[in-house]
Amino acid sequence: MSDRYTSFANTPAGRAVVKRLGLPEPLRLRRYQPGDPDVAGTVLVGGAGRLADPVRKLLRSLGAAIEGDGPYTGLIFDATGITDSAGLRALYDFFHPVARSLRPCGRVVVLGTAPQDCANPREATAQRALEGFVRSVGKEFGRGTTAQLVYVAPGAEDAIESTLRFLLSPKSAYVSGQVVRVGPAHVDQPKDWTKPLDGKIALVTGAARGIGEAIARLLARDGAHVVCLDVPAAGQPLSAVANDIRGSALQLDLTAADAPQRLVDHFSERHGRVDIVVHNAGITRDKTLARMSEDKWDVLMDVNLSSQERVNDALLAADLLPAGGRIVSVSSMSGIAGNRGQTNYAASKAGVIGLVQSYAPVLADKGVTINAVAPGFIETRMTAAMPIMVREAGRRMNSMSQGGQPVDVAETIAWLASPASAGITGNVVRVCGQSLLGA
Amino acid sequence: MSDRYTSFANTPAGRAVVKRLGLPEPLRLRRYQPGDPDVAGTVLVGGAGRLADPVRKLLRSLGAAIEGDGPYTGLIFDATGITDSAGLRALYDFFHPVARSLRPCGRVVVLGTAPQDCANPREATAQRALEGFVRSVGKEFGRGTTAQLVYVAPGAEDAIESTLRFLLSPKSAYVSGQVVRVGPAHVDQPKDWTKPLDGKIALVTGAARGIGEAIARLLARDGAHVVCLDVPAAGQPLSAVANDIRGSALQLDLTAADAPQRLVDHFSERHGRVDIVVHNAGITRDKTLARMSEDKWDVLMDVNLSSQERVNDALLAADLLPAGGRIVSVSSMSGIAGNRGQTNYAASKAGVIGLVQSYAPVLADKGVTINAVAPGFIETRMTAAMPIMVREAGRRMNSMSQGGQPVDVAETIAWLASPASAGITGNVVRVCGQSLLGA
Repeated sequence: MSDRYTSFANTPAGRAVVKRLGLPEPLRLRRYQPGDPDVAGTVLVGGAGRLADPVRKLLRSLGAAIEGDGPYTGLIFDATGITDSAGLRALYDFFHPVARSLRPCGRVVVLGTAPQDCANPREATAQRALEGFVRSVGKEFGRGTTAQLVYVAPGAEDAIESTLRFLLSPKSAYVSGQVVRVGPAHVDQPKDWTKPLDGKIALVTGAARGIGEAIARLLARDGAHVVCLDVPAAGQPLSAVANDIRGSALQLDLTAADAPQRLVDHFSERHGRVDIVVHNAGITRDKTLARMSEDKWDVLMDVNLSSQERVNDALLAADLLPAGGRIVSVSSMSGIAGNRGQTNYAASKAGVIGLVQSYAPVLADKGVTINAVAPGFIETRMTAAMPIMVREAGRRMNSMSQGGQPVDVAETIAWLASPASAGITGNVVRVCGQSLLGA
Repeated sequence: MSDRYTSFANTPAGRAVVKRLGLPEPLRLRRYQPGDPDVAGTVLVGGAGRLADPVRKLLRSLGAAIEGDGPYTGLIFDATGITDSAGLRALYDFFHPVARSLRPCGRVVVLGTAPQDCANPREATAQRALEGFVRSVGKEFGRGTTAQLVYVAPGAEDAIESTLRFLLSPKSAYVSGQVVRVGPAHVDQPKDWTKPLDGKIALVTGAARGIGEAIARLLARDGAHVVCLDVPAAGQPLSAVANDIRGSALQLDLTAADAPQRLVDHFSERHGRVDIVVHNAGITRDKTLARMSEDKWDVLMDVNLSSQERVNDALLAADLLPAGGRIVSVSSMSGIAGNRGQTNYAASKAGVIGLVQSYAPVLADKGVTINAVAPGFIETRMTAAMPIMVREAGRRMNSMSQGGQPVDVAETIAWLASPASAGITGNVVRVCGQSLLGA
């Protein structure tokens, strides 16, 4: 699945060539295989705040060691006890001696209090500083290490298990440099953490191939019945995916006037509800604005943004999203950073972020969460068709020196879709290997 | 002032070579010279919301034409009338026909309503989408064009003049792809827009050279009496700057225990107040975390962050910052994106962002604003000492294909320090030529 350069660079001869020439050294990232534990080996826990003890207890219950000599699979630092900038020294004290003691594909997680939840400006300043530290660690540690900052709201101490499991596991192989916010929530623990979506009904749009197919497969792996949706023209691959994962196929053009009603009819008649909605369907119509025809603007905006709004509103009006419901929308790095030739696409994907952030408080009243993932360079048919220099630049300009896989986006969505992720809403999580590109 | 490559690329022979080889084509950016008008030529205004008419009136009063054929010096679009994603089509309708009709170093400004001020999720989604559009335009239009999104709060229609003047003028040559938020405020119009700081007392830290020197010179140009502060070791260049701008020199080590009190004494005895505080002093102590000594962490954090906090608190406690006061802190792109070898620096500069955002609501009660600027690659002694490949990469990886000048940071600070910028607080504005690097 990895690109040719990464494969080459991981052979004995390739390693020598790459080192000698000072080329990027992409490590073959470890990814989750069914049967793997989420956490293994020794995860060192440091810091003194309201989270260190609950985290130690949680890690022990997962079978991880929490003390002892390195090399470590993970380093977790509870920074919630830091109340001013001088106190940031505790970061140095914990990480400096162990900075070289992480295994390849190691995990760094810093836990903090979001600035707006802090008692005073001094504390808020110090907690905001964590972000610069964590993003630097992600760029510096290398060898497949990921680094994240998780802001845990006061009262949300019991709502972090799904997030810690995800961020410590190989499921988050291509997620790094991210800031995740977890709020207080009543969390239903899954009976079986390998099947957290057991009994759930999921809808995945654009499921016939690429990232959508990977999402459908993963939600099915985690126990959901997946309704795979795509346009009629993709009917054949769509059926193949749906059959393979024992889901159902639904051919539908989301821009059709009757699409929302047909979706409502489908779910009310067959299932009486839909627990998980993944808005993955999207198109590109690249042109500079001066050369862009009207229809390239209109059709793209309708597929990528307006149809998501219509579907959400129809499902909500029909009361088909029960408490515990999950909506996950696929945004894009372009929506965050903008891109030449993509005024239409970037506007639609920035709009997806607006959708998620503006609906989050509205849906919270119903016990439904809504989040977005923003993929960076992911290896698909689309990226395979790029000119080689553009493709290579995109692939290497991130902390992993390689592109991500569709499964990396899918794993991130599965985490957000879990019943145990009730405390996460209005978040935008990039799946970009900590791409250098940004806003 | 521009680098050798940019100078070469702007000769007739250089232009031919650069085009032939497909090299970056950095335009010599137009910068403000005393006597220049803020706005000249024709600025086309489009869109239908609550701002188009006030903006047209303002532009006319500044002597700009607001209709007619191109080429245009600026394009302003009032997007506050857009209430859903389908309505975003109005962006296309306005910009598509004129996308090639901007003069070099043209200006694009889109005016919107911040998502949190919108009436409903549909409107918030569309307004958030503007950000992806504007950032793409900044990357696409080229030839020194800048593009910004200004979110104007309802009721802040009269508070935007200083911002429009800055963003349309050559003063904002190296500011692009930014989102600025203007809130409602009582604005004191300067009697003379070329001397908006007339009668103000300003403090600039780290003023002996580089960016700090440029800030001191510009605040003096705009009419302020500038107290130039630097460490005793920089006493000679500090005096030279202070004499040259008829300010005063203050030798002080900001990390000394008595520094805040000495500052308080200085300003209460000499001036009875300080209207403008620019926290520019900062140091780097680059090392990977594994190789970093304790003192590299401690001294950097104290200079870059903790001393700012102590000085602010001392000035506030002594009631030396009057209503209309301004604090501007210098953050960094590293504080936003993180950087290898800069865990200490990035943490301190992310902390500066936290400081600005957490103090803004506290200071608002006193009529004081606090904002940050985050420089990208700025041509200084520090960047001149970089290895050539690192320097060239940093210089070219932005929408201007060149590094910025210290004066670009200084102009941005002068805008934020203006009495007419009363509606801007808690903002972080990058001065980075829309660097590709980000979070």
